[in-house]
Amino acid sequence: MELEIAVIGCGPAGLSAAINAKARSKEVKVYGVKLCSPALHKAHRIDNYLGFKKIKGDELRRIFLEHAASMGIVPDTDSITAVYPMGDYFELQLRKENIQAKTLIITTGVSVARPLPGEQDFIGRGVSYCATCDANFYKGKRVVVIADDSEGEEEVNLLADLAAETWYIPQYKGPYSVRDNVEVLEDKPVEITGNMHLEKVVLESGRELEVDGCFFHKEQLPASRIVPGLELDNNHIRVDRDMATNIPGLFAAGDVTGRPYQLAKAVGEGQIAALSAAKYLDTI
Amino acid sequence: MELEIAVIGCGPAGLSAAINAKARSKEVKVYGVKLCSPALHKAHRIDNYLGFKKIKGDELRRIFLEHAASMGIVPDTDSITAVYPMGDYFELQLRKENIQAKTLIITTGVSVARPLPGEQDFIGRGVSYCATCDANFYKGKRVVVIADDSEGEEEVNLLADLAAETWYIPQYKGPYSVRDNVEVLEDKPVEITGNMHLEKVVLESGRELEVDGCFFHKEQLPASRIVPGLELDNNHIRVDRDMATNIPGLFAAGDVTGRPYQLAKAVGEGQIAALSAAKYLDTI
Repeated sequence: MELEIAVIGCGPAGLSAAINAKARSKEVKVYGVKLCSPALHKAHRIDNYLGFKKIKGDELRRIFLEHAASMGIVPDTDSITAVYPMGDYFELQLRKENIQAKTLIITTGVSVARPLPGEQDFIGRGVSYCATCDANFYKGKRVVVIADDSEGEEEVNLLADLAAETWYIPQYKGPYSVRDNVEVLEDKPVEITGNMHLEKVVLESGRELEVDGCFFHKEQLPASRIVPGLELDNNHIRVDRDMATNIPGLFAAGDVTGRPYQLAKAVGEGQIAALSAAKYLDTI
Repeated sequence: MELEIAVIGCGPAGLSAAINAKARSKEVKVYGVKLCSPALHKAHRIDNYLGFKKIKGDELRRIFLEHAASMGIVPDTDSITAVYPMGDYFELQLRKENIQAKTLIITTGVSVARPLPGEQDFIGRGVSYCATCDANFYKGKRVVVIADDSEGEEEVNLLADLAAETWYIPQYKGPYSVRDNVEVLEDKPVEITGNMHLEKVVLESGRELEVDGCFFHKEQLPASRIVPGLELDNNHIRVDRDMATNIPGLFAAGDVTGRPYQLAKAVGEGQIAALSAAKYLDTI
């Protein structure tokens, strides 16, 4: 299947992009997380999105999702682990399948979690964000999985089938359903070290795990880590006034493009990104 | 009185700017036209502003105005005829008074009416947009008033007191309540000609009026004509991603900054402009 527009992220920017793509009769799909827009979910009261007086964030979130659903947009929760720009289309690597899309709109918001020191230095050299994709490289090796939620258990169990030693460092509360040969450490990673290749994961307790592979299971990855060659500007995706990035056919909207981290800004940018993507589709 | 933020325009961008300024506890006032956002008023159905499913444009317009009113924002219809950047504040010339504002946000939308050929060449040299301001220069002279609505009658009557000859060319349906010494022409201006100074207004009928002054009464003037030195980009106000123009303290949002001419884009930009203005206020 080849989509016309793939949207990564199901917050206000992503949903706004999707309804605007639909309004232009484009084939669009949204890839999101289980709880779309946690920031909105937590907002006590919102008074500065024109049209809604003193509304609870979670109520507005529900209204947004309902609006999208009424136009046939239901976010898929199979998260995207890598994006490969292929010239006139994008190859998107999901956990369960690969898909192709002619254009892509990234609306993944801001990640509160900064990468660990060393994490980015060893991407592809021991650090991976997709066990399903890379497990085969770690047969008979020592691996650790650091997971933000229980879906990491599936990943660690898969690795435990192949690896010589397997550790699991959950960053959420248990119980954990992992195989007997997986050692669970209730600890916190603080640094990744190595030389040419990843060698150690240093933990808060002081313990140092000597490993060949370190898999991160994050609910949503920072876009900069999933699209090679994407230009950033102070950790935000660099966009122009049309929400175009440096990669043709790739657009971005919302918090991921920079401050202010605000609802109306995100919704407006989502609209612009969708209309720019629609315009781009007409030229290819 | 010196305002913190003056907003010109009461469409979605202007109202969004105003509610966001209020949310930041800034003193703000909106100067608009009688019918805020005629484009929204006319829209049959809107489906691409996140949160509202299949809503009539005019219903949404009413909701927007109500939201603004709930926060104490009621647009003033005394229109702004000129803006003078004074360094650390702006002097705004209204028809009825002058006001000062530390920052200014222009959200006047796109004007469907293009200027007449020659109109812009003679601004300050015979062409004026404010009879109240400039009437005194035309004692004993020949003047014409071209008006988009009945408020032009007040202006032509004022001029008729001073001028030697006065014509009135209404661009709306009568009856017209003008003095006996005003000649009403139900015609259409097509061109302004002259040399160093305005000399003639050419009408569609072929008639040529030899005049010293030509006053336009328009409901809302294009921003480029009211702010000297404002940089444009293809007839739109040039802004950066913070909605800042080339003049410090002056911001713009909505259709006036360029395409797409869309609701969500306008609302988002209005928010950004207000937050940028608030930030600017903290630095002066």
